Amino acid sequence: MLHAVVPAGGSGTRLWPLSRSQRPKFLLPLTGSDQSLLQSTVERLGRLSAVDHTYVVTGSAHAVDVARQLPQVPGDNILVEPSPRDSAAAISLAAAVIAERDPKAIMGSFAADHLVPDHEAFAQTVEKAMDLADQGFLMTIGITPSGPDTGLGYLRIGDNIGPGYKLDAFVEKPDQVSAVEYVNSGQYLWNAGMFTWRVDVFLDQLAKRKPQLHQTVRRLAEAWDSPQRESLFSQLWPTLEKISVDYAVMEPAAAESMVGVVPGRFSWDDVGDFDTLGKVIKGDGLGNVVLNSGSGPEPLLNESKRNVVVSAGDRLIATIGVDDAIVVDTDDAVLVAPRDRAQEVKLVVEELKSKGRNDLV
Amino acid sequence: MLHAVVPAGGSGTRLWPLSRSQRPKFLLPLTGSDQSLLQSTVERLGRLSAVDHTYVVTGSAHAVDVARQLPQVPGDNILVEPSPRDSAAAISLAAAVIAERDPKAIMGSFAADHLVPDHEAFAQTVEKAMDLADQGFLMTIGITPSGPDTGLGYLRIGDNIGPGYKLDAFVEKPDQVSAVEYVNSGQYLWNAGMFTWRVDVFLDQLAKRKPQLHQTVRRLAEAWDSPQRESLFSQLWPTLEKISVDYAVMEPAAAESMVGVVPGRFSWDDVGDFDTLGKVIKGDGLGNVVLNSGSGPEPLLNESKRNVVVSAGDRLIATIGVDDAIVVDTDDAVLVAPRDRAQEVKLVVEELKSKGRNDLV
Repeated sequence: MLHAVVPAGGSGTRLWPLSRSQRPKFLLPLTGSDQSLLQSTVERLGRLSAVDHTYVVTGSAHAVDVARQLPQVPGDNILVEPSPRDSAAAISLAAAVIAERDPKAIMGSFAADHLVPDHEAFAQTVEKAMDLADQGFLMTIGITPSGPDTGLGYLRIGDNIGPGYKLDAFVEKPDQVSAVEYVNSGQYLWNAGMFTWRVDVFLDQLAKRKPQLHQTVRRLAEAWDSPQRESLFSQLWPTLEKISVDYAVMEPAAAESMVGVVPGRFSWDDVGDFDTLGKVIKGDGLGNVVLNSGSGPEPLLNESKRNVVVSAGDRLIATIGVDDAIVVDTDDAVLVAPRDRAQEVKLVVEELKSKGRNDLV
Repeated sequence: MLHAVVPAGGSGTRLWPLSRSQRPKFLLPLTGSDQSLLQSTVERLGRLSAVDHTYVVTGSAHAVDVARQLPQVPGDNILVEPSPRDSAAAISLAAAVIAERDPKAIMGSFAADHLVPDHEAFAQTVEKAMDLADQGFLMTIGITPSGPDTGLGYLRIGDNIGPGYKLDAFVEKPDQVSAVEYVNSGQYLWNAGMFTWRVDVFLDQLAKRKPQLHQTVRRLAEAWDSPQRESLFSQLWPTLEKISVDYAVMEPAAAESMVGVVPGRFSWDDVGDFDTLGKVIKGDGLGNVVLNSGSGPEPLLNESKRNVVVSAGDRLIATIGVDDAIVVDTDDAVLVAPRDRAQEVKLVVEELKSKGRNDLV
């Protein structure tokens, strides 16, 4: 049985005005159904883990929404960070809390805001990673690339170890030429930030690489089910080093051949922008992807093709002769852009911040 | 002194979702300022007429809005039609009411929803028409064409009569070939539906062409300042023939050489659609025409050119890399279309009506 951890953070500024600082990507129904990405992630993990073995780590700003979107997850399994301290703190805390309950538990960490439609293929891949995690490896899951994406980091495959491989190296986001080489070589997978390990192995590595961080999360985990939790958190949490789990543990461990990788041959996407959203969700006969998460009527798309239309407010969206565009309607903002400029949506967010319009971001 | 009559009717379905059956074109601020077309029309007539000589004829559905937009116009000068009976009824009633007060008054009729930015040139043209009206002609004002418009009727110029011409004929909307011929000939003007006449001359012509209509509006006008007004209106108004003033009076009178025309060399537009709106209102340095009649922030147009953007709600409109488009945001609907499909907006209105969504039209 897997102990499943779901770090629920990040905002998704390229999904503005749908995503906001108070309404981040993982809380939004970007799955093609009514489910949020968070709900879909927890449902997907249900094949591997029971709900009382499922944990969510999130910020205090989103604790209420997470609690309400996931009524089935026990309250003590929702780990609320008083402030963001990057992924090493979040994931190490979860590992330490799980270790208090089951010192040899196998834990997996899967981001709340990724879309994996094929739950069965995902579960089969994680089960392979669990086999190798049980043997003492810190496991990653690498996605078989569907193209030379330059917006992702890569995992270089090493020697075969049964159902997976040793991880040769973590590789930073490449330029276009390198990305094509990586994909053609067959030796690189997309780094989707999916981890599986025995908590004792992980915490040993953490103790070796980041002893202060290790000691603190252990103290916090010991106090988790005690009345001291709150005071200890407010005292110790702000002292934790801000560092990613990749830099703190995974890369140093990979250099010592302790990291493995299992290829995942399933469709995976981090749904970073509206153009991507239009690609991962099935459209209608004219290629229009319509998300109607608000209370408005169904959009009227007249002679319009291949658009991504999001109706999140209570109003009618009507288009005439509009192709390959993004139209997003929310209660306080509406966005119009061609799909090929989806990346630039974050510039609007930056402009609004610079104008002091924090109510709109 | 002119007695100025402003027929305020028509809906403007090509300006949806800004214009609605309950919020017709003439009530909207489509002037490039905060003024509505109606307010701008009455201000323009202020050079020729005092407010107590200014009349508005409108439907019962819009009486309240007209009254509030024009607080300076005396209540008895706002003629409220119980139901729409076309332009002959509306204009004849105004003529008869004015004749009760001043039997030889010169009256001009100018639609509430046309945009004429040059008020001075307009006034000079109307004054010429008033000279000829005083001599007993039913006068029209024809706009010097700026191009071969096939969406308008034309006026064919006849013999010179001082500051204007006799009107040879009213000509229906032409095809493209004819429109080019008309404009090149120099003998045709756009029919802008602007009339000027002595009320006694007009009412004599009405009595000759449409005796029943004449008799009824005379009776209504006699009762205008009496307690019988309301009961007489509810009894007689529905019996009036539905016919345009062009067919009822002007065309038959033109056939008897009683109609004159004065050329107007000013910019004029009936602001029928959003593309036209973008042409008649001055844009910013990138050609964007932005109307912000709502309570929302100024739209953010990032690398966007030559758009018509109407913000009539309380929300932010943001565009990225959008050119030559129409973006209209209102409280309950948002429209996106390329400017060259502006005419098709009325199809959305028809679709909504066929779906029974009368709340949105």
